[in-house]
Amino acid sequence: MLESLKEESLAANLLLPKFGIVNLTFGNVSVVDRERGIVAIKPSGVAYGELRAEHIVLVDLNGSKVEGELNPSSDTPTHCCLYRNFPEIRAVVHTHSVYATGFAQAGCGIPCLGTTHADYFYGEIPVTRKMTADEINGQYELETGNVIVERFRKLNYLDIPAVLVLNHGPFAWGKSGEKAVETAFAMELVAQMACHAFTVNPEPRLIQQHLLDKHFLRKHGADAYYGQGKKST
Amino acid sequence: MLESLKEESLAANLLLPKFGIVNLTFGNVSVVDRERGIVAIKPSGVAYGELRAEHIVLVDLNGSKVEGELNPSSDTPTHCCLYRNFPEIRAVVHTHSVYATGFAQAGCGIPCLGTTHADYFYGEIPVTRKMTADEINGQYELETGNVIVERFRKLNYLDIPAVLVLNHGPFAWGKSGEKAVETAFAMELVAQMACHAFTVNPEPRLIQQHLLDKHFLRKHGADAYYGQGKKST
Amino acid sequence: MLESLKEESLAANLLLPKFGIVNLTFGNVSVVDRERGIVAIKPSGVAYGELRAEHIVLVDLNGSKVEGELNPSSDTPTHCCLYRNFPEIRAVVHTHSVYATGFAQAGCGIPCLGTTHADYFYGEIPVTRKMTADEINGQYELETGNVIVERFRKLNYLDIPAVLVLNHGPFAWGKSGEKAVETAFAMELVAQMACHAFTVNPEPRLIQQHLLDKHFLRKHGADAYYGQGKKST
Amino acid sequence: MLESLKEESLAANLLLPKFGIVNLTFGNVSVVDRERGIVAIKPSGVAYGELRAEHIVLVDLNGSKVEGELNPSSDTPTHCCLYRNFPEIRAVVHTHSVYATGFAQAGCGIPCLGTTHADYFYGEIPVTRKMTADEINGQYELETGNVIVERFRKLNYLDIPAVLVLNHGPFAWGKSGEKAVETAFAMELVAQMACHAFTVNPEPRLIQQHLLDKHFLRKHGADAYYGQGKKST
Repeated sequence: MLESLKEESLAANLLLPKFGIVNLTFGNVSVVDRERGIVAIKPSGVAYGELRAEHIVLVDLNGSKVEGELNPSSDTPTHCCLYRNFPEIRAVVHTHSVYATGFAQAGCGIPCLGTTHADYFYGEIPVTRKMTADEINGQYELETGNVIVERFRKLNYLDIPAVLVLNHGPFAWGKSGEKAVETAFAMELVAQMACHAFTVNPEPRLIQQHLLDKHFLRKHGADAYYGQGKKST
Repeated sequence: MLESLKEESLAANLLLPKFGIVNLTFGNVSVVDRERGIVAIKPSGVAYGELRAEHIVLVDLNGSKVEGELNPSSDTPTHCCLYRNFPEIRAVVHTHSVYATGFAQAGCGIPCLGTTHADYFYGEIPVTRKMTADEINGQYELETGNVIVERFRKLNYLDIPAVLVLNHGPFAWGKSGEKAVETAFAMELVAQMACHAFTVNPEPRLIQQHLLDKHFLRKHGADAYYGQGKKST
Repeated sequence: MLESLKEESLAANLLLPKFGIVNLTFGNVSVVDRERGIVAIKPSGVAYGELRAEHIVLVDLNGSKVEGELNPSSDTPTHCCLYRNFPEIRAVVHTHSVYATGFAQAGCGIPCLGTTHADYFYGEIPVTRKMTADEINGQYELETGNVIVERFRKLNYLDIPAVLVLNHGPFAWGKSGEKAVETAFAMELVAQMACHAFTVNPEPRLIQQHLLDKHFLRKHGADAYYGQGKKST
Repeated sequence: MLESLKEESLAANLLLPKFGIVNLTFGNVSVVDRERGIVAIKPSGVAYGELRAEHIVLVDLNGSKVEGELNPSSDTPTHCCLYRNFPEIRAVVHTHSVYATGFAQAGCGIPCLGTTHADYFYGEIPVTRKMTADEINGQYELETGNVIVERFRKLNYLDIPAVLVLNHGPFAWGKSGEKAVETAFAMELVAQMACHAFTVNPEPRLIQQHLLDKHFLRKHGADAYYGQGKKST
């Protein structure tokens, strides 16, 4: 069981360079076993080309190491904070993908400008608030998780499975390592499309609510009809 | 015959990743057999790497499935609407290529700024109007086709074989699967060039009518002299 | 002799996709044999993947075909015009590379903003004037050459071996097919850098004359000291 | 010993095309042997695909050739100037990577907008002042080093291991050839992110000082806890 968890974590981490959303060692994926309360996460500062299943570190939901020779990612407390507060997610991804990070550095959420966005995210991908000096100088990585959780107080983390941490970069999550990485890639894609839209028109067109509803709900929820899950209408 | 139709559809779908104009599963191509009134289209939500000829779904011109185990693309009603209204086309392509989608999200057509554009499109690639709530909440994919057809009431769909659906993305069409994908790629290319032109000069130079005429007509119509079709002048 | 001319032309044409400055069939290279007055040029509309030496077309300096089964590039009269007017060049390249074409569509020359530019071009890469209706409707490709020549009346075509044709795209030239393609690639590179500079600062810094002199002259002319040609100082 | 120095220099030079931060021959890396006062640097104008260890040129700290058949990079006096003035560096990299050069041409330093930047650079990557006519017309490459050194009078070259030379391009340095190239790549990456941030918001958010401190210091200095160097906290 834990071997398969480590394998899922490894496979998801290796999807990051395949999708082109990681550079150097800026990125990591974790997957949680909800029954045992164990998280399988990338070790800190290890190159993707050298990563193997035995390098994946196991920690509990408080981030304490349970198994593994290497140090877990320094972002581990952020991942664990998200698992504790978002009970229905099974995987977390963090990258510094260039367009999404551009928005995080611009201090702007990624507005929902089109159906590509609406197929994955039910509205703007939000940006967190400025962290306080105490938060940064205290348990910084934990507090990073806390500002994400705070940002979602009035938002549904299943409907908008991603966030930008201000002056930092994107996080995404999902029901599996593979799905969370796909969501992180979709976020980068819509960030790029939005960037091009801003180049052409500094005031691009927000998607209308009806179209947002239509696209998000045809892929998600009880009435979804996209893909091979049920008979198409 | 239908096998060759499925093969043409498969080959054209596989050109999308080759040209770099598709990400994830955002894209599909269909090809029509006009005599039999049968459309061969990509199944919904199937990855390009796994796509084989037997996956291609056959539907009639109203979008009803005639053959195939999988669901056809959810965009099938849009494709069929275009086939019913644009009698001289044999293939339809839909992508979310990033630059063209950027224009669709900016709410702008792609202006004709140069000869690259003029070689493929006889003027601006237009953007459709905002859809009504009824259109979106009703037969959405069919209505998407209808707003495209409406946009071409005063335009020649053979001279401008592409469109941007507002807040959504590009569609292109042509006389074969391969040619339609080439046109979709040319649209992405001119969208990228136009985006760079806007970066350098927020008010770029529209092509003059004489130059547009010259380039479009040297490749299209009775007096064309580009390529190996007739003796060059 | 003519075989080696065709081989040089073929090799230079095949460098275009290798440098990533050609898409579809938008690009061509010619090489001239000055003694015999023969130009070896790419055939019109042939894909780069299928191009072989026997496809290269030989024309005289007026563009009349001397040898070859295929039609020469429709841009042949432009190439020949440049050979007739710029006696010291041996090769001409035309592409629609995306950043340089962006400038041509913006109606702007590529300003000399840095030493990358200065290493290849002794000042701004100029853009041609708007062509008249008569020029476009007459011998268009020849007149395209003529507006380039006109633009260089007060410029040295050896010091600035490239130009942007307004609303069209770049041409470059040089002493060999390989060198001319390298120059076309350098033009695309400085166009990209300039585009990024405009994004960061709508009024980027022009290079100062002393620095332009220094960089251009350390690579060109009697006192050049870059590379392995003479002892470095 | 000198063979291993040449091998380190070769390996680092070959990382430049691998990271995609070099085009044509615009880039070079040197590595110094501090005990012997010998610098191993790329020869001038040699293509990366042809570069072998025996081509690497050895010079002393004044730039005079000690060993090697080829001319050293024309930028050698700049490298040597940095070695003489920054005693704790072992390698220097110079490229014309497109985004960082875009900033150098915009006349702007790369502002610290996020944690990607802060992980490598403790503040803005500065741009040098305009050089005087005398500096350019005199020992230009040496003076290029001097304006870099001048720019760092009030800055710590270990905390900010990179610079932009105005209207020219980036230099980076570090404790090894590999690390210096990694830093040059990180600079290009943050330049790209900053460029996208400027596209979205012409006045992007500077990182707050606390966050800059946190990220730089968790990777550098006595209390660093990133990676596998010490037990994670």
